Amino acid sequence: MKAPDKYTDGKQKLKAIFGEHGENAVAALDPVAPDLARQIYEHAYGDTYARETLNLRDRSLVTIAGLTALGYPQQQLASHIRGGLNVGLDREEIVETITHMALYAGFPAAVNAALTAKDVFADLDAHPQETP
Amino acid sequence: MKAPDKYTDGKQKLKAIFGEHGENAVAALDPVAPDLARQIYEHAYGDTYARETLNLRDRSLVTIAGLTALGYPQQQLASHIRGGLNVGLDREEIVETITHMALYAGFPAAVNAALTAKDVFADLDAHPQETP
Amino acid sequence: MKAPDKYTDGKQKLKAIFGEHGENAVAALDPVAPDLARQIYEHAYGDTYARETLNLRDRSLVTIAGLTALGYPQQQLASHIRGGLNVGLDREEIVETITHMALYAGFPAAVNAALTAKDVFADLDAHPQETP
Amino acid sequence: MKAPDKYTDGKQKLKAIFGEHGENAVAALDPVAPDLARQIYEHAYGDTYARETLNLRDRSLVTIAGLTALGYPQQQLASHIRGGLNVGLDREEIVETITHMALYAGFPAAVNAALTAKDVFADLDAHPQETP
Amino acid sequence: MKAPDKYTDGKQKLKAIFGEHGENAVAALDPVAPDLARQIYEHAYGDTYARETLNLRDRSLVTIAGLTALGYPQQQLASHIRGGLNVGLDREEIVETITHMALYAGFPAAVNAALTAKDVFADLDAHPQETP
Amino acid sequence: MKAPDKYTDGKQKLKAIFGEHGENAVAALDPVAPDLARQIYEHAYGDTYARETLNLRDRSLVTIAGLTALGYPQQQLASHIRGGLNVGLDREEIVETITHMALYAGFPAAVNAALTAKDVFADLDAHPQETP
Repeated sequence: MKAPDKYTDGKQKLKAIFGEHGENAVAALDPVAPDLARQIYEHAYGDTYARETLNLRDRSLVTIAGLTALGYPQQQLASHIRGGLNVGLDREEIVETITHMALYAGFPAAVNAALTAKDVFADLDAHPQETP
Repeated sequence: MKAPDKYTDGKQKLKAIFGEHGENAVAALDPVAPDLARQIYEHAYGDTYARETLNLRDRSLVTIAGLTALGYPQQQLASHIRGGLNVGLDREEIVETITHMALYAGFPAAVNAALTAKDVFADLDAHPQETP
Repeated sequence: MKAPDKYTDGKQKLKAIFGEHGENAVAALDPVAPDLARQIYEHAYGDTYARETLNLRDRSLVTIAGLTALGYPQQQLASHIRGGLNVGLDREEIVETITHMALYAGFPAAVNAALTAKDVFADLDAHPQETP
Repeated sequence: MKAPDKYTDGKQKLKAIFGEHGENAVAALDPVAPDLARQIYEHAYGDTYARETLNLRDRSLVTIAGLTALGYPQQQLASHIRGGLNVGLDREEIVETITHMALYAGFPAAVNAALTAKDVFADLDAHPQETP
Repeated sequence: MKAPDKYTDGKQKLKAIFGEHGENAVAALDPVAPDLARQIYEHAYGDTYARETLNLRDRSLVTIAGLTALGYPQQQLASHIRGGLNVGLDREEIVETITHMALYAGFPAAVNAALTAKDVFADLDAHPQETP
Repeated sequence: MKAPDKYTDGKQKLKAIFGEHGENAVAALDPVAPDLARQIYEHAYGDTYARETLNLRDRSLVTIAGLTALGYPQQQLASHIRGGLNVGLDREEIVETITHMALYAGFPAAVNAALTAKDVFADLDAHPQETP
């Protein structure tokens, strides 16, 4: 049932953005929700992320904005902050995006996201060799 | 101030669906928010859940869908996944409901719910004797 | 770039559930967001809805639950109420699902959804010949 | 199936807060979702609103805050702004509550709520005789 | 009580992004919620938008993403789509941002936002002379 | 770039409401998101909270209501429950506000908030000397 190209392309795209971290996150879903894992590869990374209308840096920016606004998905936000640093965002841009979202989703959303970014940055500083 | 029949009926209904787990969850509220605990028995389980227009299997299905879409109530979702297994849902139906919700609430909502289901299933496998 | 089978299958599935209404709703997206329209056919109806773990009646039930809980998508909810009636739900089950969601998403979510259902039912009563 | 005292008490409480407006709003639900209408009387106004731990002015204040934060229920917010004016809030307190919520739910939530308040105030100024 | 520089700077920034449209939107708030209107000038446009860590094109991109994810603020989304076109986004980037958000907030959020974009684009095509 | 009076006033207001707890929470943001921390002082506590249209007890009440309705910001809710007790709310009023919000945001929102309140109250009982 896999769409072979999109599945393989998506897996490569995900690895290019997130490194091992991203692969492991989706792999953790596989034993319980294999169709959901497959759709993340095929539909999210093999289809949407493959279109060049927005480059990966911009896709990362809008993903961080959307996850900050939703408020609850802090684990996904942490992954996309890591990914964003891999595709051309710097820490200041990420934090400014989060601060900007306080206007539209309120301070708690922005504060939680900023604390998540703080944790990711601290982890990266403690393990500087981890790059995709 | 308790409506005696609905209160008692609701308590029995809750126990029938969730076993000891459910009773303990509501009992934990009692010392801090006794009216909220009472309303869960009377209004939720003694009134809404008592109506037969939807059977308990369908009520469990729609509850899992709604909690997945809301995103933040992972503790309640875990309880309703356990309850769903007790009233006729199988694991595949629960996971498919969660995967289905990715269409309407996005991948992070579905991924978080799938990881909650994974934890519940693992706990049930580790303690197979726990039934209501 | 279309995945031919999923695209065609999804279009048929959508028509089977919603009739002309559904096709027109997605067609309205085509001039502005053709990739989004394509993904609704391929990913939503050609992939998720195609899996048989849940039948169409159950998929409709959980979709109505999720849209009621999210609160804002009343237009989509109206479509899925029409679709639900076409795949085996009756009006009482739809209204009971909406009433059930008051427990998890609050009364305003349920009241708005009930008023949307009321409008759909009135429209169907006024145009009884409209069937898929 | 009605809990007679709570049902009757709730209906009176609702009328005391909202006047004819409130009764009509719930009555509009009756033909489509009679159990939802009944629960609004019995559970919301006959039980929660009946407790004296918070007076009606404070209940109105927190309801306006919550509905502003949720963002989508503008129709309910309009009703509760009318109701709030009937139970002791003045326009400045209502607008300040809405402005305060911009901190926690963002500017769009507060702007939409302020525009709803503007409409209610304009309607009241145009029809000054309408009191409960 | 106005912070003179931020207030004036914010008003100019808002006009630079949105033209007359933006000024009128905030002016509509003034009679009912003057502090909220003032804070939009001072805090949103005179402070956050004034920082150069993100340029206006990127701020518009993340705002469109966040508003799409929240789902309910379609009026604000329409304004920011107009503004985005004024600060360097093209229609394809806006639609792709909206399509991208389907991954994180679901199809209804993206479909509603795409229909809002469609309306804005149609209005701009019908009144091509309206530029800031 | 700091607005000196609002910054200093906001810091004092925050300390008056929350004591050391509040200061530490904002200070934790400083190394990662200094503009967000500054805006919390200047905009939230130096501007909105400084207006006397609502007193601090009422601001606390509506904040607890809004955070309960949003569901995800339990850390902020815990702070505002502590703060509310410092500015004139008693435990019963806080719990009743949370219980009231079950009507508008559903039981999971209210249950999570009640459990957060339970934790705060238990911590205060274990460390009774902690006052601002």
